[in-house]
Formats: sequence, C-alpha cells, structure tokens
Amino acid sequence: MDIRRYLEQQRDLVDRFLESVHPSAQTQPITLHESMRYSLFAGGKRIRPILTLAAAESLGYRAPAILPIAASLELIHTYSLIHDDLPSMDNDDFRRGKPTNHKVFGEAMAILAGDALLTLAFELCSAPAYGDGLESSRRVQLIYELAVGSGHLGMVGGQVLDIQAENQDIDLPTLQTIHRHKTGMLIRAAVRMGAIAAGASAGQLADLTSYAEQIGLAFQIADDVLDVTGTKEELGKSPNADAQRGKKTYPTFYGVDGARKLADECVERAIHHLTSFGETADPLRDLARYIVARKN
Amino acid sequence: MDIRRYLEQQRDLVDRFLESVHPSAQTQPITLHESMRYSLFAGGKRIRPILTLAAAESLGYRAPAILPIAASLELIHTYSLIHDDLPSMDNDDFRRGKPTNHKVFGEAMAILAGDALLTLAFELCSAPAYGDGLESSRRVQLIYELAVGSGHLGMVGGQVLDIQAENQDIDLPTLQTIHRHKTGMLIRAAVRMGAIAAGASAGQLADLTSYAEQIGLAFQIADDVLDVTGTKEELGKSPNADAQRGKKTYPTFYGVDGARKLADECVERAIHHLTSFGETADPLRDLARYIVARKN
Repeated sequence: MDIRRYLEQQRDLVDRFLESVHPSAQTQPITLHESMRYSLFAGGKRIRPILTLAAAESLGYRAPAILPIAASLELIHTYSLIHDDLPSMDNDDFRRGKPTNHKVFGEAMAILAGDALLTLAFELCSAPAYGDGLESSRRVQLIYELAVGSGHLGMVGGQVLDIQAENQDIDLPTLQTIHRHKTGMLIRAAVRMGAIAAGASAGQLADLTSYAEQIGLAFQIADDVLDVTGTKEELGKSPNADAQRGKKTYPTFYGVDGARKLADECVERAIHHLTSFGETADPLRDLARYIVARKN
Repeated sequence: MDIRRYLEQQRDLVDRFLESVHPSAQTQPITLHESMRYSLFAGGKRIRPILTLAAAESLGYRAPAILPIAASLELIHTYSLIHDDLPSMDNDDFRRGKPTNHKVFGEAMAILAGDALLTLAFELCSAPAYGDGLESSRRVQLIYELAVGSGHLGMVGGQVLDIQAENQDIDLPTLQTIHRHKTGMLIRAAVRMGAIAAGASAGQLADLTSYAEQIGLAFQIADDVLDVTGTKEELGKSPNADAQRGKKTYPTFYGVDGARKLADECVERAIHHLTSFGETADPLRDLARYIVARKN
C-alpha cells in the first residue's frame, strides 16, 4: 500500500468530518469559534484520529460511528497544543509555521478555546446524532478511555511532569515517564478506542495496546530527533527548541544515531505485536514505519 | 423541612464522595493533585451537585450511581473558577477567603489543574466502577448534557461573552444572554442530569428544565445583589468587584430593590413549574428559596 496516499485520504476524511461538525466562524460567540477553528484547521497531520480509524479497520470495523470517536482525539490534541504554547507554559510564538493561538487571539481566548475544544471532544463522543452502529455500553467505555488517556494520570499529568523537569538534571527513567504520559497515553487511547469501537476481544485489545505503546515511544523519540535534525521549514517552528529550553531528550542520552536506532527498534516491536492480524492491519504497520520516517 | 440541615447533609455526602475518588495529594504528579485539591476542597457550597441529587430525588431516584454524576458538576464548576480567576481573565487574587489557585501554584499549574478537573468530570461519568444502577444509554445522555452545558455554547461560551462585555455599554438582553450561558447552562445541566438519571418522562424533564432556568436566573441576580450588599467576610472576596471592573449587573439596570424583586419572581415561577410534583420535590422548592436568601 501507498502510505502517503492512505494518510492523505484518511486526513481528508477526518477534516471533512471536523468541518461538518465544528461551529462555523459565524456562530456566536464568534471570536471563540474563530479561535477554536484557527488551531483545529492549522494543517495538523491528524495522526491520532488516523490511528483510531486504522485500529478499527484492522478488526474490520468501518461504520461511520468511528468518525466522531476519531475526531475527538484531534480535538483533545489541539486543545493541548493551545494550552502548552501559552506564555506561562512553553511560551511558544509559532506552531506549524503560524503564530500560536494566544498570539492571535490573546491569552484569555486561547485558554477558553482550549477548554471548549476539550469539552467538545466529549460532546462528539456522546452526541445522539452519532450513536448509530455503536452500542451505548461501548460509547461509555470509549469516553472513559478518552478521559483517562487525556487526564491527570495521562496527558495532563505528563505535561505537569514535563514543566517540572525543565532545567532539571533528569535521568532516563524520568524522561521515559514524562513521555509515556505526555505523548504516549493519548496515542494509546487513540488505538484502544478504535479497537474498542470495533468490539476487539481481550487478546486483540492487549496486542493493539502493546502496539500503541511502542509507536507512542517511537513517535516521541522521532520528535526529539527531528528537533535536532529538522529545518525551520520542515518543522514549522525553530529547530533546537528543546536544547534552548534546557530540556533533556532522547538524543541527549543516546546521541542522534542511537536515538534513531531506538526508534527503529520500537517500530519493529510494534509491528511484531500485530503478528496475529491479517492484512487488514497493514495500515497500522505502515503507520508505525511512517512515524519514524516523517520529516515533520 | 429544615433547608440548612438538608444542605449540610447533602454537602457532606458530596464531599465524602469527592474525597473518596479524588487522588490524594501524595499521588504523582504531586503538585498537580495538590493544586486540584486546593480548589476542590476550598469550602464550596456544592449547590450544583445538590441540585442534581434533589432533582433525582424528586422522581424517587436515590441509587448511589447518582453521586458521581452529581460530583462531576462540582468538578466542572471548580475548574471554571480556577480558569476564570487567572490573570488573563478576571485576575482575581482571592476566592472564598483564600488566595486563588494561580496565586498559590502559579499560572501553568492552575491552567493544568483546571484541565485535569474538567477531564476528571467526564472520567467520573463514564468510570466502570460507578455504572451500577444506571443504564449505559442514560450515561451517554448524561455525558452529553454535561458537555453541552459546560462547552462552547454553554458555560465557556458565556465566559467569552462576559469577558467581551467588560467596560462595554451592554444592554439588558445582552446581560441576560451572558448569564443564561455563563451560570445558567450548568445549573440547567445539573437539574436535567438528576432528572435523566432518574428516568424522567418528557413532561417531567420539561418541567424540571423550566424550574432550572428560573433558579439559574435567580441565582445570578442574587449574586449580583450580594456583590453590592455583602461584606468581605460574607463573600470571601472584596465586595463591589463588578462595579470596579466596569461590569453591568442586574442592580445596574433595576437597582438593588428592583433586582431583589425580580429574583423573588423567578423563584415563584420556578416553584410553580413543580406543581405536578409531590412532596419529593420539597428539597427543590426549598433550594429555590434558599438561592435568593443566602448571604454568600
């Protein structure tokens, strides 16, 4: 299969869905909806929703009810970027080559746009309009996965650890804990939500969870490597931001080549966890490879 | 019935539940959980969860499954206070007689504690541990109510309108729109969630919704009046904060006596909507009266 073509098609699918459900910039309160749209439609790769779609597909599930579930992960991801970029957090001026949300709309609106996107994620997962083909008991399970993956013991917890580690002399286990939460838990939730929606057996869910944990790690290592090796054009922001911020990363501990090798090993392990899956899991396999090969 | 005693008992019930589910201050990440606890256990009156319990009780529903639903509303309310107090928003230094969250934990942690409380609300509503006695289809409905009431067209939308109205010469309909969203929608969700959990008929849900809309309005008018007439000790913050911030309020348009009369009329109408309910709705009736009689 052609992974770039697949990614493009799935991204279009997610984008069309998000466009169809997200309030227009003419809906009151106008500035709030403009601010939400500004970050949501800023050219994201939609990796998390695509993982949800691919995980469901690996078990033969393709019902339209998977789209709001997948989209909810992008809403959570987008809100986390808006809040992470705030002056009191990472204080970033650019994201994906564009001024960050608070630079355009001000801090108050950026905080509220984040809150609204976070809440909208749960609205999508529970909306009566999108329930067809998904049992209520599964929907409750999906909402729980989303809340746990993105909350105080998941993504938000990871962001707290990350902030606390700045300019600290952290060791490798601490770095791994930060990333397992900050990036890993939402990627894990994305894959598991696709699997749960598709009615995965306990064994299938365990395999897909192990796959997700490995690609989550690979994703973060690849991000750290890109921060060192990427150009401003590729990244849409200044390279070497981590070093300038005194952040320890995988290349700090392993060097760039060592980190790349580590990421490749994660991808191998991820794919190995899919051994019992047929070719319906090819998108998941190719996604794992893409995650370390990407340039941004 | 003795409303003060009732409020105390229900508040204890909610507090004990929150205490039992909220991560201790010793759970990693420690500072995050300290920050969340600081605001959650700052002496709130628990009006919203008590409304949920009372609405369910009015229909004879008292299963333990109502507690996480009720508690989720307090988590949302608490997160909204933390974010509203931030320097880029209302920039408040005190809340309930104590320094605001960001004054103690810093802005970054305050934003993240708010995000975590917001997410925890949805975790509680969907957790497998709390599903007994509540059908999954109802749980999905409850989650949807919570998301809509607190999101971009509900509470967050109201906060945006409120910020935009500061130092603006707004008219009465605009003031009403702000309050209907900022305060009203979450109170409406609180009552509706109790009703939905209890399996309300369409007619009962309509009556309880009308009740909720009237007490939501009464609550806001009473708040505006208290801001003018209350002492610093009663309010736990400086009085006349609205006027100093250039905010128009109900007393601005009606005077203090006129606003009080208006609030009383709302309470009358609220109680009138409960005509078809028996004495199981007495707590709701007394809560309506309490909302305008309270001193803080």
